[in-house]
Amino acid sequence: MMRTETRFPAIAYGPDSRICIIAGGGDLPAVIAEDLDRQGIRPFVLMVAGEPDPEAGLERYDHESLTLEEAPSLVKRLRRRGVTHVVMAGEIKRRPRIAAMRPGLGLLRHVPAFLRALSSGDDGLLRFVVEWLEGSGFEVVGAHQIVPDLVATEGQFGKVSPEKTDWRDIDAARLAAEAIGALDIGQGAVAIGGRAIALEGIEGTDAMLARVKDLRDHGRLAGKQRGVLVKCSKPGQEARTDLPSIGPRTVDEAHAAGLVGIAVEAGSSLVLNGPEMIGKADALGLFVIGLPPREPRHED
Amino acid sequence: MMRTETRFPAIAYGPDSRICIIAGGGDLPAVIAEDLDRQGIRPFVLMVAGEPDPEAGLERYDHESLTLEEAPSLVKRLRRRGVTHVVMAGEIKRRPRIAAMRPGLGLLRHVPAFLRALSSGDDGLLRFVVEWLEGSGFEVVGAHQIVPDLVATEGQFGKVSPEKTDWRDIDAARLAAEAIGALDIGQGAVAIGGRAIALEGIEGTDAMLARVKDLRDHGRLAGKQRGVLVKCSKPGQEARTDLPSIGPRTVDEAHAAGLVGIAVEAGSSLVLNGPEMIGKADALGLFVIGLPPREPRHED
Repeated sequence: MMRTETRFPAIAYGPDSRICIIAGGGDLPAVIAEDLDRQGIRPFVLMVAGEPDPEAGLERYDHESLTLEEAPSLVKRLRRRGVTHVVMAGEIKRRPRIAAMRPGLGLLRHVPAFLRALSSGDDGLLRFVVEWLEGSGFEVVGAHQIVPDLVATEGQFGKVSPEKTDWRDIDAARLAAEAIGALDIGQGAVAIGGRAIALEGIEGTDAMLARVKDLRDHGRLAGKQRGVLVKCSKPGQEARTDLPSIGPRTVDEAHAAGLVGIAVEAGSSLVLNGPEMIGKADALGLFVIGLPPREPRHED
Repeated sequence: MMRTETRFPAIAYGPDSRICIIAGGGDLPAVIAEDLDRQGIRPFVLMVAGEPDPEAGLERYDHESLTLEEAPSLVKRLRRRGVTHVVMAGEIKRRPRIAAMRPGLGLLRHVPAFLRALSSGDDGLLRFVVEWLEGSGFEVVGAHQIVPDLVATEGQFGKVSPEKTDWRDIDAARLAAEAIGALDIGQGAVAIGGRAIALEGIEGTDAMLARVKDLRDHGRLAGKQRGVLVKCSKPGQEARTDLPSIGPRTVDEAHAAGLVGIAVEAGSSLVLNGPEMIGKADALGLFVIGLPPREPRHED
């Protein structure tokens, strides 16, 4: 596969840095924690209550749990632990119940901005948290800055290539994913038979793929046997918090939904547990490819 | 409510006309049949196997059943019944299994166009069927031409008005619905808290509303209490076959999903069983409104 230059600068941290992973669901938090561990840096994991997968095994690191409603105490907790860098990783499915939140006096001035952010889409909310943490003196970094190998490259990942007709699905799903991304609604779409048939809202990629499986099981897809999942970053997306990602589980779920391949935008999507994912895709006969980025990434 | 001029011409049919309703799911086929009956015209109902709701009671009219795979015999069957006008009404969820279709010799020349249409989205497929029927000498008419009162008018339908904040949801959902309509993907979207959170693919409005209910039940909507469903026609939509529609059931499902209102595009959406729907919406406290059409509809 071709290398795609990523648009993200490397970051500086060392053995004295104290890195906190604010952990949601999916494989990403564990992937980052393991990689830091390999680099000799013991991460501190702040688990968002109810979000991390039990099998992620995050308990084996120094950790604490935090409910969404306790978010106002976030900065205080990070300071108590001597945190210098923060990486937000993994999906957070729930949204805080405002009525149950008790911002301290120091935070009250942030409340209007928070409420505005909460209603302005995922991107707005994440940007608010990033600004709050940065304003409090933490360095907020992206998963891709800690583990640059995660960033999807351009071209074919495994042994399987898309067939010629699959490119119609890739194009249709990408067009749809970009259209809903431009509205800050979702990052993914599924196309079958040359047309987009399912669009990702806040339910997430897993739930969308489960829906496609249902439609197929109920004969709603006209016996069509192929189809593709495409995930794209949103234009102007806060890259440190919410890049689209795929991994072994995505391959399993796409296969269960009867799809024959997955395409992501190179340079701004993450591939988790790449070797395992590719092995699985090869075994199941799915292609996985990185699409050329929407805009050129390098200027030279 | 204000009257919105519809963009559809009236059609001419009389007691000698033989009108066939090709019936899918939902309330529309029964609404048309009852209206024709009131006009003294006994319709012939061709039920698409497995699609009409059993409670629609279409069996009380002169009727036959047709599987999707038997579609190639459609023209022959209509001729045998002396049909002059055809109206296609109601959702058809399944798509034909090509391998099980046996086109007669006369139809073979249509096969490439049919296959192209099948993969070009609902609109393409419906347009193919319309052209085939018209080319065979039938007049294809829309539900709104038989029952003009079905067409949604502009303004508020019942007693309940949108609150000021609901307009943000209406705008966000409409923007999303129009974006996916422009890609011929779907006709509906749900917005809550000022942002679109669910988009309708081929699963249809009912399934999308059930999804929103699920998201709410699982705490994924941050305790947000309001939210709106918007349905729009697709640009360039074949108006005789697939106008977006709402009815009493839509109100029930929107209410079950915790939404507070429904907005449709006036002039190109259908309201089924209007009085019952409005009574239900009033009782449940939901607003139902017709939004000004995207483009001006009259030139005078």
